[in-house]
This record gives sequence, structure tokens and C-alpha cells, in this order.
Amino acid sequence: MMDHLVETNSVPSRLVEERLDEIRRVMGKADDDPLRIVGVGAGAWGSVFIAMLQENYGKFRGKVSVRIWRRGGRAIDKATAEHLFEVINSREELLRRLIRRCAYLKYVEARLGDRVLYADEILKDGFCLNMIETPLCPLKVVTNLQEAVWDADIVINGLPSTETFQVFNEISKYWKERVNAPVIISLAKGVEAEFEPHPRIVTPTQMIHRATGIPLENILYLGGPNIASEVYNKEYANARICGSEKWRKPLGKFLRQSHFIVWDNSDLITHEVMGGLKNVYAIGAGMVATLTKESATSKSVYFAHCTSEMIFITHLLAKEPEKLAGPLLADTYVTLLKGRNAWYGQKLAKGELSLEMGDSIKGKGMIQGVSAVKAFFELLNQSSLSLQHPEEGKPVTPAELCPILKMLYRILITREFSCEAILEALRDETMNDPRELIEIAHSHLFFQPWLLGQKP
Amino acid sequence: MMDHLVETNSVPSRLVEERLDEIRRVMGKADDDPLRIVGVGAGAWGSVFIAMLQENYGKFRGKVSVRIWRRGGRAIDKATAEHLFEVINSREELLRRLIRRCAYLKYVEARLGDRVLYADEILKDGFCLNMIETPLCPLKVVTNLQEAVWDADIVINGLPSTETFQVFNEISKYWKERVNAPVIISLAKGVEAEFEPHPRIVTPTQMIHRATGIPLENILYLGGPNIASEVYNKEYANARICGSEKWRKPLGKFLRQSHFIVWDNSDLITHEVMGGLKNVYAIGAGMVATLTKESATSKSVYFAHCTSEMIFITHLLAKEPEKLAGPLLADTYVTLLKGRNAWYGQKLAKGELSLEMGDSIKGKGMIQGVSAVKAFFELLNQSSLSLQHPEEGKPVTPAELCPILKMLYRILITREFSCEAILEALRDETMNDPRELIEIAHSHLFFQPWLLGQKP
Repeated sequence: MMDHLVETNSVPSRLVEERLDEIRRVMGKADDDPLRIVGVGAGAWGSVFIAMLQENYGKFRGKVSVRIWRRGGRAIDKATAEHLFEVINSREELLRRLIRRCAYLKYVEARLGDRVLYADEILKDGFCLNMIETPLCPLKVVTNLQEAVWDADIVINGLPSTETFQVFNEISKYWKERVNAPVIISLAKGVEAEFEPHPRIVTPTQMIHRATGIPLENILYLGGPNIASEVYNKEYANARICGSEKWRKPLGKFLRQSHFIVWDNSDLITHEVMGGLKNVYAIGAGMVATLTKESATSKSVYFAHCTSEMIFITHLLAKEPEKLAGPLLADTYVTLLKGRNAWYGQKLAKGELSLEMGDSIKGKGMIQGVSAVKAFFELLNQSSLSLQHPEEGKPVTPAELCPILKMLYRILITREFSCEAILEALRDETMNDPRELIEIAHSHLFFQPWLLGQKP
Repeated sequence: MMDHLVETNSVPSRLVEERLDEIRRVMGKADDDPLRIVGVGAGAWGSVFIAMLQENYGKFRGKVSVRIWRRGGRAIDKATAEHLFEVINSREELLRRLIRRCAYLKYVEARLGDRVLYADEILKDGFCLNMIETPLCPLKVVTNLQEAVWDADIVINGLPSTETFQVFNEISKYWKERVNAPVIISLAKGVEAEFEPHPRIVTPTQMIHRATGIPLENILYLGGPNIASEVYNKEYANARICGSEKWRKPLGKFLRQSHFIVWDNSDLITHEVMGGLKNVYAIGAGMVATLTKESATSKSVYFAHCTSEMIFITHLLAKEPEKLAGPLLADTYVTLLKGRNAWYGQKLAKGELSLEMGDSIKGKGMIQGVSAVKAFFELLNQSSLSLQHPEEGKPVTPAELCPILKMLYRILITREFSCEAILEALRDETMNDPRELIEIAHSHLFFQPWLLGQKP
């Protein structure tokens, strides 16, 4: 463990139990009825989030049960089995734990190729397929979706946005007979675009609402500068839980740990959209970092242009969107610096990955940014959205005011240009001062309420 | 040279000469009278700025003369002479240039310790003491201040803020008899605090005005995400020139190059203060990066807290300060990532430097951040500024709402804490969501016009 980390036992156990009792009270749990927390989807952040709850509250057996659902049958290939074996053997306390639980030898067999391991199997020992380097605590894994969620009180959505509707559509069948609605916290950071009856963005919380009928009041979003492995290693991080006042305040307190501060915020949509939007620009950031050999000046210029495009886009969707500050700004900063999408942009620019390989990468998971570039550009390029440009006077679609988004679309989706073109977009001499885009944003000229499905 | 760089000859010579003619016309220069541009102070950015003008316009001999002033007599120590010798011998075109100008052998003598070289001497060959690794083009160096400035049309202030008043005070003697006032562009990014007759900040442009009596209309500020060596290596960068409309527009066009885009802006004070303020937080950023072993999450959380403190402080000084966006945000981003002050913070946290060594470091120059921490904190901690805290109700000084600024003061100035304390300040569980500080800022509750010497 890194010595600078916050001491894990800094919060006395009595105080932790009080927080558990508080949330049980708010959720109206009877004394002998444990609070059931279920993670749906075992990506890196989804697994870490559940593991933190397990580590923090798991010891209070009768009062809480923490489970995680992931599909069964996903075989681990030989290379991953070898990597896993190295990770286990390089950490003494991990080796000791597996031996004690008589769970070690299957890894030796898999290493020798004498046995095939499955993703749900290794997750029980704390190994998430997308984050082998950061072993978690042992987890209760359920591969039957009905069994996992039918009686859940709190559901954590750790699925990518591209799978959220489909899985929650299945879940809705198992919740038909429920008396009280569960509370759902979505971590998903993608967005989808719809064009009929009119162009609009659909965010994961809206997908969950559509699929299950659970009232929006019970569906929250949590986002922040959270690199999964760094947060699990107790590096200080903060986040915001957004949604109804009724749930965000008590859940904010419940989820908070000494190294993971959770503030609450009412503006769910801006946070969720920004969560998807920053992945768009993170891919570009990775390209710029590689193409300019990590030039600080170029990265900072790119950062300034993206943040002004992001501010502009959020002002299309909401009249008074949350300011790009605090965890929202930090989330953007960290994602452009070190997130999975930035990594993908670097690999493309180095030629180590190609677009033909698709956007789900072994050992990394789904690259949300690619589908988000498509969703945002195609949506914001609809002629029905075009308006008079304040200076140039001719009609222009919002997408045309976002040169970086536009170039990323032409690199990643239509594939007209190679990665180098992102530098030209950045260095276009006619490029205006990013403040002008923000001026236009603050003029509310382009605000389109139904882009988020709201009535004007 | 890095292959990804913008081609230097992309701007046709005719166009460059047109820009020179345009500025000569605006400054009312007679045909046979060259436009005299003088750099005062030869730090890294000051030297690069003049070298870019020399390279871009120097060939039009009769129309312009570009000079740079630095104090004479500053001896180069043996280690620097050795380093200089390596730099020269590792670059063929540089070696060829010095040989052709019969300027090479003195470097051999200095390498052998048979001769002492002086800073002004090596600057003539393009070597700036603070940036030996990035050789510039040859420069016309003048060590006599009067001779350098008495007939200057455009003066570039490249001095640190701590020397600006004293040097311009001397310059004012040489300008007594002038018919028309020169135009001054200040690059200085520090600030000083004054407490009598009442607490206020004094920025370098104000110091120049006080020392010389040159009207504020003729004094401009230029700032942006400009790491000197990266800009000289033609990495794409942008900047803003701020000040009166009369001068900022023509000068913006004159200073612009294909890899160095210069926008213009009216809000000089916010830019200048932000220029000084970011150096404060850059020192902390270096500490955090080192103490957390470059943790992306911690750096992003730190970035979010500093930007909210910076936004809060600028709202103390101006009613509608320029938004922290575009080059201002990029400048903050790059300075926290790779500037000299961030470097200093890292060295302190690693124990390779100590506070006792002072804030002027050999081969690096002045660490502006240290004097800026003192100036900002002591100024904003004046009880005469305290007001009712919107939530806690008790009177509080603006400085108390800036936990990071406060901790940097206690580490760097009063030296009560070691560098590690910056992590505690960041991880203080009572820390509010940075958005709250911005809310208070936008309430204009704390706006104090005379903090910048303006009448309410």
C-alpha cells in the first residue's frame, strides 16, 4: 500500500455502524431484515464500488448483505490466467488469503492451462477482469439476475450505458410484484442519442426509468474524479451523488468514507451528461498527448478548448447547468489525463490499436467515448437545431461550433481522417478564443429543452 | 526538432512584412525610422519572447530593431559552462553557427575553466541562463539600461514582479524628455501586497505605471499557457494580450505567429492577478504530485479545489472577472502541470530543496509563487476584510475560506508544517464542495473594489 494513504481504520467502527443503522431506518428496514445492496455489472468501477461497501459494512452480518451480479460463463484466456498468477504470487497477504480459503490451486491449474477459469469465479476472490492489477476483497457473486435483484433495496448500476436498458428491461420482470420500489444509484457514464419523434439525448438514469418504471425520484447518479484502482487503493477522492433530495442526502452520508468524500447535488442531468461528454474529449486528449510527446502546452490548450465545448453543450441541454467546477472539473481533468478513453486515444495515435478492433477492448472493457462521439455529434448536427450564428449571421448547427467534437467524429466514426487531424483542429488559425463559445452558451440562444426530453 | 511541429515558414514573408508595416503605421513611425523593440529582463519567457520577434521580423533591417537588456557582470559557474558545452556539441547546426561567427572557442575555454563567461555574453549567442537546454537565435544584448530603453517604441517587461518597480523606476529617469510615450507589454506574473493606506494588491502593470507615469492605456499584459521552451520549439500555444482597445488589437496581430495565436481581452487585471495566483497553487500541485506518486485522482481533486479558490479570489477583486476558461484555464492547467513553480513544489516535497535556500534557484530563476503566497494570504487575511459567513454566520476573512492557500502559507512562509500537510488540507473531511465557494463568489458578497486600488 502507498505510505501516503489515509489510514483505513481512521473511522471508528461504532460510527460506521451508526451510518448503517441510519440508512436502514430511512429505508424502513425491520430489525431482523438485512439491507440488501446489489451491484449490477462488474466493470472496474462497479466492482470497486461494491468492494468498498463490502469492506466498510460487510462485517455487520445481520444488518446488511452486499452482492454483485455478473454474467456467468465468461472464460478467462491463458494470457490473463498467467497475468493473474503473477499478481497473486507477488502479493504475500493475497497468497496467504487464497491458501487459507483453499482457493489457490485453481489458479495454478489455470496457469498451466489444465483448467479454464470463469470471470464470475475469479470475481469471488476479488479479481475483476478489467482490473487484474488491483485485487479487491472477496465478494458474494451471483450469476442469476433474478436471484440477485428480486429483493434488492439498493441497486448500483455498474453497466456501460450501451447495456443498461437491455439488462434493466429484464430486471423489470423480476420487480413486477414488489411492494416498495428499490433505490438505484447509476455509475454509468455514457449517453445514447434518439432521433424520433425528435432528436434527443437519453442518459442511463432515463433508460433505467423507462425500462423499470421505477420513479425518477428513486434513481440517482454518482460521478466524480474516480479512477477505480486509485480509489480502491484509498487515494483521496471525492464524488457527487445527484438526484432527489429525499435520497441523495442520506445516501451521500452512507457512501462516504474518510478517503472518499461524497457531496450531493440536485442537477442530475448535467452531471450525467458531463460524465458521458468527457469521455468524448478524453479520447482526443490521449491522441494529443501521444502526438505531441506529452507537450504540456499542447495538452493545456486542448484542455481549455474541450472545457469550453463541454460548457457550451451543457448550456444546450439545461438553462442553468451546474458549473464546470469541483468534482465535475476534476472528473474531466482526471479522465483526460488517465482514464480508459485517454488510454484508447493514445493507443490509436501510436497505431497499437485500430478502429477495426471495435470499442470493447480485452482487459480494459468498453470504451464509452466512441459511442458518445457518435451520439453527441449526430444529435447536435441535426439541421432542426440550427440557429443564426451571433457574429457570422448564417444558420449553423451547434455541432459546427465544436471543432474538436466535429474532428473526433470524422476520425473515429466516418474515419475520413487519421489521428493527426486532431492537431490541425486544435491549431486552426481561425479558431476563436474559447471564451466566445462560452459567451454564446451564456446567451441561452441555443438552449433546447426537448434535447433532454423535457417540455420547453 | 519534434516532427509534429507546425512548419515555421508557413506564413509567407510578404504577409509578415505587412504586419510590421501595419504596426509601424499605428505607432506613427517615419519611413526611415526603425521600430525599436526592447526586452527588459532576460528570464526564460522574456528571452524567448524577444527571440521570436527577432526571428520573425529581424530580417527587415531598416524597419525594425530588436534588442534585449540584462544586467552585465553575472558570471557563469563551471557546472553551467560544462552543461553549455554539452548542449552546443550535441547540436550540429548550433556548432556550425558558432564556428561561422567565430564565437565557439570561448565556450571551450570556459569548459576548461580557463575563462569566465558572463550571462550577457552567452545571451548574444542565444543562451539564456535559465534555459540552457533550449538555445535561441543570436540576440542584440545591451547591458546599459539607458542605452537600451531611452528611444524604445515597444518595451517587453520580462522581469519578475519583485524587480519590476525598481528597474522601471530607473527607466523613468531616461524617459523624462520623451515626446511620445512608449507602449509596454508586461509578461510578469507575480503580485505584491500593500497594507497602507489600506490593504491592496499591486500588479506589475500598476507598478510600471507608478514608476514611470506612462498612462495605463499604454501598458498591456500578455499571458497564456506558455512554457517558454515549448513555445520556442514551435509547439502550438495561444495567449491573450489584455489592456486598452487602442493597443491590444494591433499588437495582438503583430505578435501572432502560426504556432502562437494571440487573442485580445479587455480585462487586464483578472488576467494579471490570475497569472500571479496560479503560481501560488502550482507549488502545491508539485507537492501533491510528488507526495501521491503522481496519482491522477489526487491531482484532479487538487485542481478542482484550486480553481474554485482562484475563482473566489478573482471575485473579491473584480465584479465580473473574466471566466476561468480558454487561455486562463489552460495557463493554470499547464503551470500546475509543468511550470517552474510546480517543479519547486516537487523538489521541496522530495527534500532535494529546502526553504532556507530562498526562492531564486540557479538555472531556474525566480520562484514567483512564494512571494505570491505571502502577498495573497496576508492581504486576504486582513480583519478589515472579514464578513459574515453566509452559512456559519460568524465573521470570517476571505483567506479562511481558502484552505489550500492558508496551508501553503503555513508551509512556505511561517513554516509551521512540512509539505505533507498539503494532503491533509486537501482531505479535510469538513471540506465543502468547491461549488459552494463559487456560489459565495457569485453572490458578490465579498467584492472589495479598493483591493485593486479602485474606488467603489
